[in-house]
Amino acid sequence: MSTDGDRYVLVLGCPDSTGIVARIAGFLGEIGAWIVEAAYHSDPDTGWFFTRQAVRADTLSLSVQELRDRFDREVVRHLGPGTSWHVTDTSVRKRAVLLVSKEGHCLGDLLGRAYRGELPADVLEVIGNHHDQEDFATRMGVPFRRISFGDDPQEAFAALADRVDALDPDVIVLAKFMRVLPPWLCERWAGRAINIHHSFLPSFVGARPYHRAYERGVKLIGATCHYVTADLDAGPIIEQDVIRVDHADSVADLVRQGRDIEKLVLARGLRWHLEDRVLVHGNKTVVFD
Amino acid sequence: MSTDGDRYVLVLGCPDSTGIVARIAGFLGEIGAWIVEAAYHSDPDTGWFFTRQAVRADTLSLSVQELRDRFDREVVRHLGPGTSWHVTDTSVRKRAVLLVSKEGHCLGDLLGRAYRGELPADVLEVIGNHHDQEDFATRMGVPFRRISFGDDPQEAFAALADRVDALDPDVIVLAKFMRVLPPWLCERWAGRAINIHHSFLPSFVGARPYHRAYERGVKLIGATCHYVTADLDAGPIIEQDVIRVDHADSVADLVRQGRDIEKLVLARGLRWHLEDRVLVHGNKTVVFD
Amino acid sequence: MSTDGDRYVLVLGCPDSTGIVARIAGFLGEIGAWIVEAAYHSDPDTGWFFTRQAVRADTLSLSVQELRDRFDREVVRHLGPGTSWHVTDTSVRKRAVLLVSKEGHCLGDLLGRAYRGELPADVLEVIGNHHDQEDFATRMGVPFRRISFGDDPQEAFAALADRVDALDPDVIVLAKFMRVLPPWLCERWAGRAINIHHSFLPSFVGARPYHRAYERGVKLIGATCHYVTADLDAGPIIEQDVIRVDHADSVADLVRQGRDIEKLVLARGLRWHLEDRVLVHGNKTVVFD
Amino acid sequence: MSTDGDRYVLVLGCPDSTGIVARIAGFLGEIGAWIVEAAYHSDPDTGWFFTRQAVRADTLSLSVQELRDRFDREVVRHLGPGTSWHVTDTSVRKRAVLLVSKEGHCLGDLLGRAYRGELPADVLEVIGNHHDQEDFATRMGVPFRRISFGDDPQEAFAALADRVDALDPDVIVLAKFMRVLPPWLCERWAGRAINIHHSFLPSFVGARPYHRAYERGVKLIGATCHYVTADLDAGPIIEQDVIRVDHADSVADLVRQGRDIEKLVLARGLRWHLEDRVLVHGNKTVVFD
Repeated sequence: MSTDGDRYVLVLGCPDSTGIVARIAGFLGEIGAWIVEAAYHSDPDTGWFFTRQAVRADTLSLSVQELRDRFDREVVRHLGPGTSWHVTDTSVRKRAVLLVSKEGHCLGDLLGRAYRGELPADVLEVIGNHHDQEDFATRMGVPFRRISFGDDPQEAFAALADRVDALDPDVIVLAKFMRVLPPWLCERWAGRAINIHHSFLPSFVGARPYHRAYERGVKLIGATCHYVTADLDAGPIIEQDVIRVDHADSVADLVRQGRDIEKLVLARGLRWHLEDRVLVHGNKTVVFD
Repeated sequence: MSTDGDRYVLVLGCPDSTGIVARIAGFLGEIGAWIVEAAYHSDPDTGWFFTRQAVRADTLSLSVQELRDRFDREVVRHLGPGTSWHVTDTSVRKRAVLLVSKEGHCLGDLLGRAYRGELPADVLEVIGNHHDQEDFATRMGVPFRRISFGDDPQEAFAALADRVDALDPDVIVLAKFMRVLPPWLCERWAGRAINIHHSFLPSFVGARPYHRAYERGVKLIGATCHYVTADLDAGPIIEQDVIRVDHADSVADLVRQGRDIEKLVLARGLRWHLEDRVLVHGNKTVVFD
Repeated sequence: MSTDGDRYVLVLGCPDSTGIVARIAGFLGEIGAWIVEAAYHSDPDTGWFFTRQAVRADTLSLSVQELRDRFDREVVRHLGPGTSWHVTDTSVRKRAVLLVSKEGHCLGDLLGRAYRGELPADVLEVIGNHHDQEDFATRMGVPFRRISFGDDPQEAFAALADRVDALDPDVIVLAKFMRVLPPWLCERWAGRAINIHHSFLPSFVGARPYHRAYERGVKLIGATCHYVTADLDAGPIIEQDVIRVDHADSVADLVRQGRDIEKLVLARGLRWHLEDRVLVHGNKTVVFD
Repeated sequence: MSTDGDRYVLVLGCPDSTGIVARIAGFLGEIGAWIVEAAYHSDPDTGWFFTRQAVRADTLSLSVQELRDRFDREVVRHLGPGTSWHVTDTSVRKRAVLLVSKEGHCLGDLLGRAYRGELPADVLEVIGNHHDQEDFATRMGVPFRRISFGDDPQEAFAALADRVDALDPDVIVLAKFMRVLPPWLCERWAGRAINIHHSFLPSFVGARPYHRAYERGVKLIGATCHYVTADLDAGPIIEQDVIRVDHADSVADLVRQGRDIEKLVLARGLRWHLEDRVLVHGNKTVVFD
């Protein structure tokens, strides 16, 4: 039974045309939905329309499945080819798996949020290619699994894929995983794997971005949260932010200050993903934050 | 005749209830409106609903007056008490009057924007209580009028009100006017008079905010663009921003750096007002930027 | 024995006059000190001079105590009345005590940093007036002590003071302690007790700042890290920062987003304090970051 | 005769070694200089030392030329090879030439600042490769010269170089000049030619950065003020800043919002250059702001 705080969240992208808003709003009005949040975006370049609607579940006499069925019949079939949509029920907890390597600042931040109930997801497992973060995950009560990439990376990726898929998560977070996923895995996790890159992309794609930022003498450093695709650090950007640095900052200072911005950017991007606020179209995102 | 770029902009605030979005969207769909921008906000505290819709004028066979009449008949009369709304036609240039005292940075910024065609308004006149900015306004080709407040401020305010009202502007900008408007004038210009205050309100209401920021040792200074009300510096806030300062900055440094943030905040707030993006409700604003 | 990374950090404030820089630099040159960081500030309003110098310990043949003695004899006695100074040795770990109430985000952030070795201090103990954060502190391996303020707050403050003083910390962090320290305790911990306030001071001093920010309709919310004094939320400001909010953010959204800025501001301010980068003069700080 | 506000500003870069600070401070103390600002930076990577000192001219009995001679004899000759230094007298106004093409926002901002006395330089002339900005420059009382690049760009660059060099400026500002200077001109104006690029470099080097930022879907756009070198958009960075954008922003919106950040970043970078706050070493800058 739905409580006062539960929402059904409808997310839709389709070819733009006159009357879509009226059709959706008419449908929601007809079933008596109390709309809590409604956001729309028409993209003139691609001719695509996007919307996200959150309605109070307790104002509806429909189950989420009935809502999906009726929406499909009464709205979606009138929309153009390529339409994609889904309805989620916030009373069903999202599921997250975190991948990590040696550095623990992003993992620590996310597990801390999860511990305090600030993350709208359950963290099912932390998977590390090293043991460094095992102690912390264990202290936080989250299962830790080591998958070594030392001997046979391809085999390790296969094991990783199997384990993750067995957990059936809504999101796989590369929380400083420091390994490039093979194309077949990017494909398999398309739209669900989120990475944090320690630069303001597209600057400093690839390795050692802080070193290269230092050498270039930039006056701001940044971090980028994006969906993982087969193109390295070139997937759809969810969130970015920067902080000011100056000539007195060494590479170590950039690394230290960068950690804080990485944590924030990843946490924001992850929350938006979990709340179905991010719609991907082509290589870009619409973020209804 | 409307061109491709012309828009009708509908702005509405009313008591919230189920079905409003459907009703508005249905109306716009029925008249064949191509919606370019659509923004909604439901405020749970006040139970109020806000929307702004921009439609392409050239997709409609209605004049703006016919649109208003039909919208009033077919939508507004079904809405609750207290509903306020208007429809503007972006092909009709907005009209602005700028009030200034001795300092010219905000005035210079706005007149520069107007000169380069960046401001969605015509500047009808600059009115100063001193002659300092007369030369600059004249160079920019904008009429300047001096109204002295030296001898009889109340008489001066009366003359100011008469002159401004004769110009019938959509907005009166206090671009560093440095004079507190009397209550009757705040009332007369309610919702149309915009002030820039050189602090991050509600800190440092009133005189000499940079001196007081310096004395308090704050690490950021700011500026606030707000509607003028009878309560000094307490009107609805449209926009705010800040910049970082440190112990090495003197009051003069704060004043100098503050000028840039004042200019930006005022220019942003003014543009939003001119584009009908700001809806006032109680002492707060909804800004559909 | 000092290692390559160890520093002696000299911090000094004194009446300004010609020749001070030369005297200090001459002294450091004479003892063969390799200066790694040197910062100066002359305050024209108060006529006060401030400096912080970090030198490589391994380039000196003096112990830190010999350095202090010689600096006192050869430099300090030539400076004016009111001169205050100290020399710290970074090979001696700083000691921190954290005070907390029910909310754990700042505590979690600081203990996470301490766990990962990012904090230049040992956390000796967490003291809470409730049990809420006991589990987390325990998981992180930090002793937790409950001191209840329910029955007799004055007695509780006395017990708190006794316990903290027994630990002899370099800093006492009010990491969302939510209790106003009595004047005698502010006095006793002057310059060592750091608070995080969840507003951009001097806006919203005291209770419920997010609620008041929401009611005022501000477009940015902030946090302030400051030394605790007997004047509520009016002590010397170490660091502040803000984030953008808008009309769609509820009080709960402000609280949620504010947590991130509180964590960052407190962590930055605390690090600067621990690295002897903050010099207090009157009610203001000089921060050599 | 020097007034109270006049300063002699000493700027120096040299190989780092023990005792430099003492030597400089000793020299300044000996001649009785009242130091108003003193900044130091030791770069561990390059082993280079940088300092900027501003002293009150009225506290010295030396002329600026005598100061230079004595400093050369008593300090510089004891420093290592590669030492570069200069002393400027703030009572001598700096001289600026502005280069522009069709867009006027940066030019308008700088001429507005110059008109209001906010720029520490005289603007000698505006040179445009088109006539678009002639009217504005003329209104602001600044000579405008057209040099057409249509027929023979190389000849035009020669004419530009001749004219600029005849004016003997301290800085040549490419205020949206939109032309790539030939290598020989970059060489001739090394350290004096400042460009504003409309991206957060090193992202989007070259043409149409806003279009490319839009296509990449970045969540922040930026601007970069840098010294011009023969490597396109790769010279030493003086200042950068960014603003937030989102999916609803079209390319035109990025252009519009970017103008404000371009203006600010150029104005800040130019002021620092004019106040001798920027020291170039290799391809990086030390900015004593």
